[in-house]
Amino acid sequence: MAINTDLVGKNYDVPEFTYDRRDAMLYALGIGADESDLEFLYEKHGPKVYPSFATVAGGFGGGQILKDLNIDLRMIIHGEQRVRIHDALPPKATVKTEAMVAGIYDKGSSALVDLQFKSSVDGNLLFENVVSMVVRGAGGVGDHGPKRPDTAQLPDRAPDKQVKIQTEGRQALLYRLSGDWNPLHADPEIAKAVGFERPILHGLCTFGCTVRAVLRELCNNDPAAIRSIAVRFSNPVFPGDLLTAELWTEGKTVFVQTKNESGDVVLKNGVFELA
Amino acid sequence: MAINTDLVGKNYDVPEFTYDRRDAMLYALGIGADESDLEFLYEKHGPKVYPSFATVAGGFGGGQILKDLNIDLRMIIHGEQRVRIHDALPPKATVKTEAMVAGIYDKGSSALVDLQFKSSVDGNLLFENVVSMVVRGAGGVGDHGPKRPDTAQLPDRAPDKQVKIQTEGRQALLYRLSGDWNPLHADPEIAKAVGFERPILHGLCTFGCTVRAVLRELCNNDPAAIRSIAVRFSNPVFPGDLLTAELWTEGKTVFVQTKNESGDVVLKNGVFELA
Repeated sequence: MAINTDLVGKNYDVPEFTYDRRDAMLYALGIGADESDLEFLYEKHGPKVYPSFATVAGGFGGGQILKDLNIDLRMIIHGEQRVRIHDALPPKATVKTEAMVAGIYDKGSSALVDLQFKSSVDGNLLFENVVSMVVRGAGGVGDHGPKRPDTAQLPDRAPDKQVKIQTEGRQALLYRLSGDWNPLHADPEIAKAVGFERPILHGLCTFGCTVRAVLRELCNNDPAAIRSIAVRFSNPVFPGDLLTAELWTEGKTVFVQTKNESGDVVLKNGVFELA
Repeated sequence: MAINTDLVGKNYDVPEFTYDRRDAMLYALGIGADESDLEFLYEKHGPKVYPSFATVAGGFGGGQILKDLNIDLRMIIHGEQRVRIHDALPPKATVKTEAMVAGIYDKGSSALVDLQFKSSVDGNLLFENVVSMVVRGAGGVGDHGPKRPDTAQLPDRAPDKQVKIQTEGRQALLYRLSGDWNPLHADPEIAKAVGFERPILHGLCTFGCTVRAVLRELCNNDPAAIRSIAVRFSNPVFPGDLLTAELWTEGKTVFVQTKNESGDVVLKNGVFELA
């Protein structure tokens, strides 16, 4: 069952996504926000919405595309995520998203598939996601699509800041209520069946935790301060892991990586562009 | 502005309440469920629904009644809660609730107002709530309504079991997403204005935490095992408090009280009837 590379460039309308303050707050709690982040958890302050909520509000509609591409869902690993934010997300909105198969690339035994999502509210482009999926066993397809951006290199010095992120044992069970119901993140048997000792945390939850760390440490919790984010997922995270986000600032660019307690890099070569 | 005692016995239809698995899971997390309670947090197991979710699904619709009763909302303290469960709550449902002013009682400087809620799903009575509110400054009304049930007396011996309940600092911010948006539980300024050093936990959250403790310790997590619950709220709880539920079993009756670390009883004279 080869990937259908003819779909590169094809557009899809994905179902509208409507959210309100409760969804935005639930997401904030899912990425670790607490009583010290009241502006994201209390309506008197909007609430403010974490920019990484864009991955929930505009990056989930790829089901039909994956089907048309002939991709075996069990073989997918979330490889990279890129988000571009044009304006701060409102506390509630109906989001209209257009998706496109942006490229399919040959990576030996695997293929890399880039899906692009452009999301608008009230006719204005608000944010864009690119989800890069590694499809195991689907390599040998040749390269289709424009040249991919290289992964950024981190500065060659000790990080300027290190931020501890204590995940909790039930974090995947809280995060999944934001819409990614993949049982890999809840079911011990399914996790074992695919080679994990127990359910793993959603990559996009680790992503959100890292975005929250950058926003607190470097942006005074101003959601409009982050214009774009690009990261690569490099190792599984287990709920309860103590993570450390390492940050390097160079002008308007923040380089980021997130490690677990064993020192494994779980989120790699992150680049945040600030406003 | 005296309470309108003519309303005793008057019936109200309250707006329908529709919930699904996400709401049930969110409630479970709000009362402290974690990865060891997967049956309440993962759809493969239903999910099971905590019987105390009845207080959310059927006990919130009293807004119009309070208005008609001439009650100043700022003067209300949640005094007691009684729940009768006729059958286990399904993972999703549309709940139809009829409310009634069951009684108004004179308590010196305060009045005690009992609101009764009877909730049905698909035409079958599923659960009932009685919410007793202390209305400060509204006493001297005389007694209107049938004789109130006395609060139960606890057995005169050391508790049979003690169960630790560690609340978390952000717990009110999580619990309120289940529908009780009273800013007293989120806003430090409002909490101070009414005499608390910081926002307090919802009484019904402490209630839910206690129900979860009883269900785990004595009912093998079977939601159908609890037929009725009656408790009195006696002291505020702050998010982050370490609570202890003390349980006494006598046949099918479980007597319960919950204390904070200072030994103050926060939930008093609880009686659970088991199936």
